[in-house]
Amino acid sequence: MESKSSILDCNRFNAEDELSLPPEDLELVRRRTKVLGSSYRLFYRRPLNLIKGKDEYVWNVQGEKYLDMYNNIPSVGHCNQAVIEAVNEQMKKINTHTRYLHENIIRYSENLLALMPAEIDRVMYMCSGSEANDLALRICMEYTGGTGVLISQEAYHGNTFLVSSISPSIGGEQKLLESSRLIPTPDFYRSGKSDSEFTEWYCKKIQEAFDSMKACGIKPACFIADSIFSSDGVHPEPRGFLKAAVEVVHKNGALFIADEVQPGFCRTGDSFWGFLRHGIIPDLVTMGKPMANGIPCSGLAGKHEILESFSAKFPYFNTFAGNPVSMAAAQAVLDFIQQENLLEHTKTVGAELLKSLREIQGRHPMSVGDVRGAGLFIGFELVKDAEKKTPDQKLTIDLIDGLYKRKILSSNAGPYGNVLKIRPPLVFKSEDIDWFASAVDETLTELGR
Amino acid sequence: MESKSSILDCNRFNAEDELSLPPEDLELVRRRTKVLGSSYRLFYRRPLNLIKGKDEYVWNVQGEKYLDMYNNIPSVGHCNQAVIEAVNEQMKKINTHTRYLHENIIRYSENLLALMPAEIDRVMYMCSGSEANDLALRICMEYTGGTGVLISQEAYHGNTFLVSSISPSIGGEQKLLESSRLIPTPDFYRSGKSDSEFTEWYCKKIQEAFDSMKACGIKPACFIADSIFSSDGVHPEPRGFLKAAVEVVHKNGALFIADEVQPGFCRTGDSFWGFLRHGIIPDLVTMGKPMANGIPCSGLAGKHEILESFSAKFPYFNTFAGNPVSMAAAQAVLDFIQQENLLEHTKTVGAELLKSLREIQGRHPMSVGDVRGAGLFIGFELVKDAEKKTPDQKLTIDLIDGLYKRKILSSNAGPYGNVLKIRPPLVFKSEDIDWFASAVDETLTELGR
Repeated sequence: MESKSSILDCNRFNAEDELSLPPEDLELVRRRTKVLGSSYRLFYRRPLNLIKGKDEYVWNVQGEKYLDMYNNIPSVGHCNQAVIEAVNEQMKKINTHTRYLHENIIRYSENLLALMPAEIDRVMYMCSGSEANDLALRICMEYTGGTGVLISQEAYHGNTFLVSSISPSIGGEQKLLESSRLIPTPDFYRSGKSDSEFTEWYCKKIQEAFDSMKACGIKPACFIADSIFSSDGVHPEPRGFLKAAVEVVHKNGALFIADEVQPGFCRTGDSFWGFLRHGIIPDLVTMGKPMANGIPCSGLAGKHEILESFSAKFPYFNTFAGNPVSMAAAQAVLDFIQQENLLEHTKTVGAELLKSLREIQGRHPMSVGDVRGAGLFIGFELVKDAEKKTPDQKLTIDLIDGLYKRKILSSNAGPYGNVLKIRPPLVFKSEDIDWFASAVDETLTELGR
Repeated sequence: MESKSSILDCNRFNAEDELSLPPEDLELVRRRTKVLGSSYRLFYRRPLNLIKGKDEYVWNVQGEKYLDMYNNIPSVGHCNQAVIEAVNEQMKKINTHTRYLHENIIRYSENLLALMPAEIDRVMYMCSGSEANDLALRICMEYTGGTGVLISQEAYHGNTFLVSSISPSIGGEQKLLESSRLIPTPDFYRSGKSDSEFTEWYCKKIQEAFDSMKACGIKPACFIADSIFSSDGVHPEPRGFLKAAVEVVHKNGALFIADEVQPGFCRTGDSFWGFLRHGIIPDLVTMGKPMANGIPCSGLAGKHEILESFSAKFPYFNTFAGNPVSMAAAQAVLDFIQQENLLEHTKTVGAELLKSLREIQGRHPMSVGDVRGAGLFIGFELVKDAEKKTPDQKLTIDLIDGLYKRKILSSNAGPYGNVLKIRPPLVFKSEDIDWFASAVDETLTELGR
């Protein structure tokens, strides 16, 4: 099985690929290299210079139209008109911060909390999912007095010093928090277990991790998880297994943080939040990416008594967070979701897409190991051998390349980089399925698989 | 002298002040309390519900006009037309992230780096000053292999887990990074020293801190400072003292991070960046607040070899940062600054304002201990006794209240909370001086000082 570091380096531009670029892109790439820090990576061996977007489509500078099967930030569609107008209207009035009263943050908070279980009754705002998870972790540590954090084996929770240390998927030389413990990826596909056996196994792993902590004198603080397990390779099933796990977490005196940056805002089609699919009431909920359709905005909702344990000891102010313009954008997203009934749409069109991809699996049974998903978050897992379920990262990269040639944006995920991550804007339509499904089918055939 | 915790609680709304509120604000405050986390604080005993802004003026929901002498985020003016248009235009085209090529981030980076010393040749983007400082610190630790961080006694560098721990001004129960050491506030006013004696004293304090680190087996990583020492109470003088200090930092194998969140983007009038006032070439520069006039955007610029030491080991991606819309806003701010020659304007009008405030000091010599500043960042220090220089926090709070009554927004800073912090949008005009100066003068007279 391929190592993690090789995954990081696939599906990206490298300097030696320069000559394949059109002259206008080559010039931009060269200018870019001269000014941006070396951490920056471009998607694709031939990077895309996107200059126009509408709904689930984007166009490059050469005028070619692409179907976006990857980007979850513009969840109500690239260039959503309602969001553009809301931002423009608010920018013309005023943009300040949370130390002045403003209707926008209050109204949005009321609307957002109305979508949460009653126990989750307060919300705070940040600028990024990283900031939300950073604060959530600190709050859990403060409330419990513990430092022990359970994380999924391939989790990604952000880029600050603290949350990088609970993000094993970063790889490289990233060190993990000493008081953290890893829970195995919930790989139901490879488990060979029934739903109940799987849930039991997962709960046992959680308990073992707490036991290991306690043996080292570490007091438990929390389990943080993205309930769709995005960077672990997309694992929605068996539905409800996380509920049992969270019960174990609570029994051990720890809290559960639902990291909704990926599954939140209707993505899974089953419910507004990913945690609701599993029937969980979290202690804290963090959210980000699709929240304001690309205007930087993130949030942390939670039970008031937990937030108070932190606020009693520490002031917290976040300059840009919760400003009237970001809140106007977030409100427009929420309104659009509700007016267009995007939850129902995501469920319906997601099920159609899943069905279509399972038909493709039927035509390529040795190479497509598993197709799983919830709503418009689907994992399409590629293997060398369907019996042994050996991950095939190379095939995945070749498939992404083939899709790119057929004008489709996609990417991969999972511990072995062999899961095609399918996560289009939620305005993705039934009519788009054929473009995508044919491209997948044709590429696999072309690759002799 | 008052303790820190009492400073945090002054100049803010408390529930017992509810009855003084107009009914429309009271309703909002009550709704707010029900939904927002308890960390949120409102400015003023009677909070302001601001619904309109233009240049250096804001209006509350009751239609009253205020002069904004406090907010440095809308540095090119509340509701700057060029920024509004730039954001709207880009939102109509596309908003993506840094894994696709885009002209905006490249052009802005070129323009930004052109304003830096040649050694600072690469830039990265984040969403907040906190994220920028969090990453800057990690980069310094990686590059030097050390963990020792020097910070100013009342510094504020942000709200993540890591940067909170180098922000002593947070107070409360905030613990500082064990490997950090505090440098005294550069309080020239109280020092009784000549410029050169002061510089020598400050350098000695820096060296002592490094010696203390080394005695504990801590390898130095960096000194991080805001060159206007905003939360330390605004300390611009003697100009150049930081240059000598940075030489000591380098001699000890550590790096210097210029936190330009406060002094950057022409604020000090003397130069585009605060560090240039002191003749320093920093190793890393962080920036934030005024960068995109309120659209969340921050940055980290540095020497390429230092950034590379980090990127060789760790991937770093920040979802919203450097997106085409934020970059369009940042570009519009930069263009406005240059087209309107805001640097020169800030220098000129700042000097006039300083002169006017010194005249007021002349009329209230026992209560106004010191008036100091650079450009449009002025500290107006209130004392109980001008000879003994005893800080007077109560008078400062009363002055802020008196200014509020005269429709002026202001706030306080410094270890004793006795420095009126004067930091209007850079579009502040000569014509505004009279409104402000008369209000200060009248309030002090009214208070019998």
